[in-house]
Amino acid sequence: MKKHIYIYSPSGAVRDKKAFRKGLERLKELGHDVEVDEAALSSQQRFAGADDIRLAAIHRAASSGADVALISRGGYGLTRLLAGIQYKRLSQAIERGTQFVGLSDFTALQLALLAKTGAITWAGPNLCEGFGSADGVDDIMQACFDDLLLEQGEGTGWRQHKESAAALSLAPAFHQKRMGDAADFRVRDGLLWGGNLAVLCSLMGTPYLPKIEKGILFLEDVGEHPYRIERMLTQLLHSGVLAKQKAIVLGQFTDYKLSPHDKGYNFNAVVAWLRTQVKTPVVTNLAFGHVQTKVMLPVGAKADLLVQGRDALLLWGHL
Amino acid sequence: MKKHIYIYSPSGAVRDKKAFRKGLERLKELGHDVEVDEAALSSQQRFAGADDIRLAAIHRAASSGADVALISRGGYGLTRLLAGIQYKRLSQAIERGTQFVGLSDFTALQLALLAKTGAITWAGPNLCEGFGSADGVDDIMQACFDDLLLEQGEGTGWRQHKESAAALSLAPAFHQKRMGDAADFRVRDGLLWGGNLAVLCSLMGTPYLPKIEKGILFLEDVGEHPYRIERMLTQLLHSGVLAKQKAIVLGQFTDYKLSPHDKGYNFNAVVAWLRTQVKTPVVTNLAFGHVQTKVMLPVGAKADLLVQGRDALLLWGHL
Repeated sequence: MKKHIYIYSPSGAVRDKKAFRKGLERLKELGHDVEVDEAALSSQQRFAGADDIRLAAIHRAASSGADVALISRGGYGLTRLLAGIQYKRLSQAIERGTQFVGLSDFTALQLALLAKTGAITWAGPNLCEGFGSADGVDDIMQACFDDLLLEQGEGTGWRQHKESAAALSLAPAFHQKRMGDAADFRVRDGLLWGGNLAVLCSLMGTPYLPKIEKGILFLEDVGEHPYRIERMLTQLLHSGVLAKQKAIVLGQFTDYKLSPHDKGYNFNAVVAWLRTQVKTPVVTNLAFGHVQTKVMLPVGAKADLLVQGRDALLLWGHL
Repeated sequence: MKKHIYIYSPSGAVRDKKAFRKGLERLKELGHDVEVDEAALSSQQRFAGADDIRLAAIHRAASSGADVALISRGGYGLTRLLAGIQYKRLSQAIERGTQFVGLSDFTALQLALLAKTGAITWAGPNLCEGFGSADGVDDIMQACFDDLLLEQGEGTGWRQHKESAAALSLAPAFHQKRMGDAADFRVRDGLLWGGNLAVLCSLMGTPYLPKIEKGILFLEDVGEHPYRIERMLTQLLHSGVLAKQKAIVLGQFTDYKLSPHDKGYNFNAVVAWLRTQVKTPVVTNLAFGHVQTKVMLPVGAKADLLVQGRDALLLWGHL
């Protein structure tokens, strides 16, 4: 299964050259033809090169003819490029078979592209942390990546947090939507979208946030205190975005630090509060975020979501 | 000059009781009649009481008949109350002569109230940090507060950062708007609005962000890395908010930490970048933010802005 993988840097400068090289090596060991963009290791201030350099890199990735265009890393830098991206070039590349993969800051490009063209991209790993980690490559992430290359990915299952099953069964949607089969709750044909919560919220009020109704919104974040996560969820609540979705799927929220001032306020308190504010079911613990074990998710694709007790299943392969 | 000052806690729990008491003492020493809301020292998790407790406190402040309703402190907690606030009760209290004063998280209430009713509130100190500091009360802040109580406040002047005068004289607005008098640049009758950048951006896409055109937008923040400040400014840029303003006035951005990864990217780089993106003049160094020396600003009032070289002047008293 030799595939053509194009590595480029649309966001932050690559500082961990060792991880970058290791990631390239690992992809080559898997038998792939790995092409590195000429500006992949560029650096200007905290960015992987000046704005025009990174814009050109994105457009080169679109012209590469690769099977997969994979970001080197996230960081920060895409939001300020959004007005300069030629979205049609990207959607045409996707039509020709190039899959764009990334996460975190990359959410900005994914959602803007979805808003402008409806094209599907993949929430998934980056090169440096996903493939270049000194700890090796996570088996599940690798399997999901292979599924993408083989066009075999069909969905992902996971177990929710303990308290989530109970909360879900108390949700108004539960009884209304019981399907007569084993599932407590099911969404059919919801448009799967989302990504990094902070990046998504930084698009609110702009033309780069897609207007998705009856969607399945998935969210993750890193290094954000629960009160900031809650403030962002509140923004989505007050804007009407949450009420328009069929389900909210929370991934991994990691690397924040609680303080004595919190006095028991934590991520679970945020989820509990959210559930008092929305009728939309809130599903937890999706294996996606700034963690090693993460799945790949097609942003912009139709999907089904099934929940039974603590077990949850997202399916898109059959659609 | 004995005034009635009402202290209440709409956001975070007061942990620094010493600063709270010291603030009360100082206001009393100035001869004021200080009334403390019954829930001012309430605490639930990180909040100054449960949501209904804090909502009731806000409405008691509106019913207090006080000359000034002053928050004990900011923190976090107002955004999740926005749907429950009775805005008309607040605007009626303001019509009867109660001035609402605060900053930081309080920006959420100020902007929501402006959006819903057009009522004017004051960006200014809180009790604990403004009046309760162990370092004493800042002279300029105190003078501005006294001006508010005496209804004598007319405006504020300040010196911009060195590089700002040059940047402003290069701005397209400079030559177009030259008034024939001494000012390099002048805005007449701009609606003054703004506050904490992160809180303001958390209202984007919601009904609580006022739709202000031809305004003077002032912004400050604390503990936000320049890349986050830039991401928020980019959101205001892409949403069209910045282009609709007559001027952008940046206050104090403090207490963030640069990292080696930034490689020269800093707050000045953000301002320089912003100036390449907007035609709206960007004025810097307003004495407002999470600092001791800060002025008071009428959010929602018409104001004039004059800039000559490094000197800037905001005037609202004559209007």
